[in-house]
Amino acid sequence: MVVEASCCGDIFLTTGTGRLVRIKGKDELCGFCILQIDEEVAKLLELKARLGGDDGKHQFVLKTAKGTRDYNPKQMAIREKVFNTIISCFKRHGAETIDTPVFELKETLTGKYGEDSKLIYDLKDQGGELLSLRYDLTVPFARYLAMNKITNIKRYHIAKVYRRDNPAMTRGRYREFYQCDFDIAGQYDAMIPDAECLKIVYEILSQLDLGDFRIKVNDRRILDGMFAVCGVPDDKFRTICSTVDKLDKMPWEDVKKEMVNEKGLSEEAADQIGEYVSMQGGMDLAERLLQDQKMSQSKQACAGLSDIKLLFSYLQLFQVTDKVVFDLSLARGLDYYTGIIYEAVLSQAGVAPVSTEAQNGPPGEESVSVGSVAGGGRYDGLVGMFDPKGRKVPCVGVSIGIERIFSIMEQKAEASAEKVRTTEVQVMVASAQKNLLEERLKLVTELWNAGIKAEVMYKKNPKLLSQLQHCEESGIPLVAILGEQELKDGVVKLRVVATREEVDICRADLIEEVRRRTSDAS
Amino acid sequence: MVVEASCCGDIFLTTGTGRLVRIKGKDELCGFCILQIDEEVAKLLELKARLGGDDGKHQFVLKTAKGTRDYNPKQMAIREKVFNTIISCFKRHGAETIDTPVFELKETLTGKYGEDSKLIYDLKDQGGELLSLRYDLTVPFARYLAMNKITNIKRYHIAKVYRRDNPAMTRGRYREFYQCDFDIAGQYDAMIPDAECLKIVYEILSQLDLGDFRIKVNDRRILDGMFAVCGVPDDKFRTICSTVDKLDKMPWEDVKKEMVNEKGLSEEAADQIGEYVSMQGGMDLAERLLQDQKMSQSKQACAGLSDIKLLFSYLQLFQVTDKVVFDLSLARGLDYYTGIIYEAVLSQAGVAPVSTEAQNGPPGEESVSVGSVAGGGRYDGLVGMFDPKGRKVPCVGVSIGIERIFSIMEQKAEASAEKVRTTEVQVMVASAQKNLLEERLKLVTELWNAGIKAEVMYKKNPKLLSQLQHCEESGIPLVAILGEQELKDGVVKLRVVATREEVDICRADLIEEVRRRTSDAS
Repeated sequence: MVVEASCCGDIFLTTGTGRLVRIKGKDELCGFCILQIDEEVAKLLELKARLGGDDGKHQFVLKTAKGTRDYNPKQMAIREKVFNTIISCFKRHGAETIDTPVFELKETLTGKYGEDSKLIYDLKDQGGELLSLRYDLTVPFARYLAMNKITNIKRYHIAKVYRRDNPAMTRGRYREFYQCDFDIAGQYDAMIPDAECLKIVYEILSQLDLGDFRIKVNDRRILDGMFAVCGVPDDKFRTICSTVDKLDKMPWEDVKKEMVNEKGLSEEAADQIGEYVSMQGGMDLAERLLQDQKMSQSKQACAGLSDIKLLFSYLQLFQVTDKVVFDLSLARGLDYYTGIIYEAVLSQAGVAPVSTEAQNGPPGEESVSVGSVAGGGRYDGLVGMFDPKGRKVPCVGVSIGIERIFSIMEQKAEASAEKVRTTEVQVMVASAQKNLLEERLKLVTELWNAGIKAEVMYKKNPKLLSQLQHCEESGIPLVAILGEQELKDGVVKLRVVATREEVDICRADLIEEVRRRTSDAS
Repeated sequence: MVVEASCCGDIFLTTGTGRLVRIKGKDELCGFCILQIDEEVAKLLELKARLGGDDGKHQFVLKTAKGTRDYNPKQMAIREKVFNTIISCFKRHGAETIDTPVFELKETLTGKYGEDSKLIYDLKDQGGELLSLRYDLTVPFARYLAMNKITNIKRYHIAKVYRRDNPAMTRGRYREFYQCDFDIAGQYDAMIPDAECLKIVYEILSQLDLGDFRIKVNDRRILDGMFAVCGVPDDKFRTICSTVDKLDKMPWEDVKKEMVNEKGLSEEAADQIGEYVSMQGGMDLAERLLQDQKMSQSKQACAGLSDIKLLFSYLQLFQVTDKVVFDLSLARGLDYYTGIIYEAVLSQAGVAPVSTEAQNGPPGEESVSVGSVAGGGRYDGLVGMFDPKGRKVPCVGVSIGIERIFSIMEQKAEASAEKVRTTEVQVMVASAQKNLLEERLKLVTELWNAGIKAEVMYKKNPKLLSQLQHCEESGIPLVAILGEQELKDGVVKLRVVATREEVDICRADLIEEVRRRTSDAS
């Protein structure tokens, strides 16, 4: 294996072992030439190492791709539990589900994520279409609606998305991660679907038992109106908005400094904004701001404030106002929001803070506040971007920050004494003596055929102790023990693993007994 | 928007509208130069079309990538039903589940799929590691075991895999499709886990109600032994094996012709093989072949035949022998099988034949027989390929041909009069008169809080007829109707959509009544 290097009129060959052999030319090499040859040699040596030296064995780097991970059975058990809670809630609210491919035409994603487009994974051009891995579920959803001319749907979609971000995996940030989206598309009366999205967040966070939480609510139109009446120039709305978005991580003084020093806002305007963004409340605050001399000058702000009032009246009927706060500092980075926006934050102190990635949506979204576990809003323009005639389909949706929730649940599981079960086996069929494999297989067949979750060890003559140990380790609650005496008597010895209590059960009653004793098991 | 072209000492600028402007140089262009400019112009015009001409609208190609599809809610409902049946079975047998990333390091997949490696999707080199989309779930599973030094696990994995194949989507072949794998890894007594895999196939196919089926069983060692005693030269085992694999699609005469004419086998050897591969039976056949003068000369074949006998004895205890056939013509293409192999085929005539892709496994696997819906076998060497020290972990597994099953279920659903429901809503909260939105929201909150799946229309004053129509369309069985009279009386009018029967229910009893009437609903 040789590589040719030529420079300064010389030609060199590097052999597979890295030795340089000069074929032709003068005696000295220039520095650049040496560098190049060194690189080639290093590459060849690496290649050689991979192909295996003299032993002929293939050498693999045993790892997953950067920023990705396997889920082991324990993590999957936690993941399944969280998904079940969330999906039950979506279904309770009458949602359908759809699925889209993991990759889209590259051009479908183009121009949707602003600066973050550089984080999109492209597929190699192997002939045919240019493809990219999906960056979120919202753009594929909008593409799906436009492509199928769907104007009404309430759907959820739980799937993995891909971002070539700098992973911080210890803090729950990955390049492959789940999104968990619920959206209502369609032309409806104001704030009814919006309120249902908040009801859903409330139900899910309550049921997951993550501790206390708050749902902050604001409206894009209120923010824009506020900027206008405070004297922010039109072309600075977006950049000032993204500074406001930092209020959950920075004190007001620093935010103000950024506005004035970096973004060139007048100090007066900044102070006026400062007054507004410190306001929090409920329907009363919306009413008060509708009377506010300055704010009431903006039509946009008034439309937003009236909708907030309406929203709160529906939230009262939904019995969720105890956790919802109208918070004028909530900005959210996404460009595509057009109305109501919201974000749920955990207020618990028991769990270590995890800085979550911007998993709720695409363009330019800054990493959300420490305890943020859900977010969303109204985006009435996105589907129109895909429609050849620009027909709009109003949408409102919420994304559950599922990876953040996994991390919390995993931490809780670690901290708790209770073991996470990775199987649902109700009973282990065991034998007390040798030569009972056939009897064990017969009995486990009876159980399987009756729909009981059962296991048997794949050994001809396993020791009773090792069979019991397996139950302890995997949390199997019952053992059905067969021995010669039991077979003679037509019974099975049923052992409760936790208490070590043993009782003879008539063989005909075994299935009923196992069902009765494990009826509360999942 | 301009592009610069220079040739023959000239410099040209092409404007966005395609006009050429010569900046400097002589009057004539060479042919090559014109060609180049034409290409640039074409590119620019295409770009312009996409960016939108004068109307400023973006033009997108509204489609999914070649060989992929969206799943609509109806397809998802069918998919969920199939998955539930399969997962229940896996769980009944005590399986855990894992998940791996959708892409792997390219080198993890290298050298595992033989010729089919060309079908692997690579990711673009955007800096960092070279990555590929997974081609199946078996190789990532083996990587997972080796990486985590796991020597014992019973796991299932249901996930999408990717193959740059020529899609035949009308026949259920896609570039993105699900695999559904169950595998038992570990050093156990012979044939016990192997028999459980067959029991699982039996249970799943029975429960999915796909019509009658057979499970063909053979063993790699029997095939190899048979080839040896029939006089096939060692170096032709594999190619002759792949010809035998065609017996389910070609008559013996054609298979023989291929062996003799194309693969250069002696006619005598081919005839001897022909005799064996026509044999089908059960344990009796294995016993007979163990006495067979020729076959018994091969140690390998005898080991395989003894295991087939043992397997059948366990299958009897599992009560599944009525569908299992020992079939010497079953070859299966995969190189990595080392022992038992099996394949399940549907024998129904009611469903149009769908040619499935080789979804059960990787290298060189020919497309399996018309009705094949599951397949697998023992592969004791694969994990060792990943272990730095070559430590082996014996494995046996089965892959359910889930896409094929989806297609059949979809066809059945189309053919059947019964409508596929895409939501599980039990009751719609409707109003008979205007101005009852608040009352509807209050009632639906009561229902949601009690865990009832309920819906309400997002309109202030929907017509009763349109509310009832929505129920008919989405198969919602009950309507809880509120009117002024009902509110006064403290009742709700509960309407059964199917029969149009209406009955007044005391408001306090509504939840119980809805539960009672929909208890058999999913």
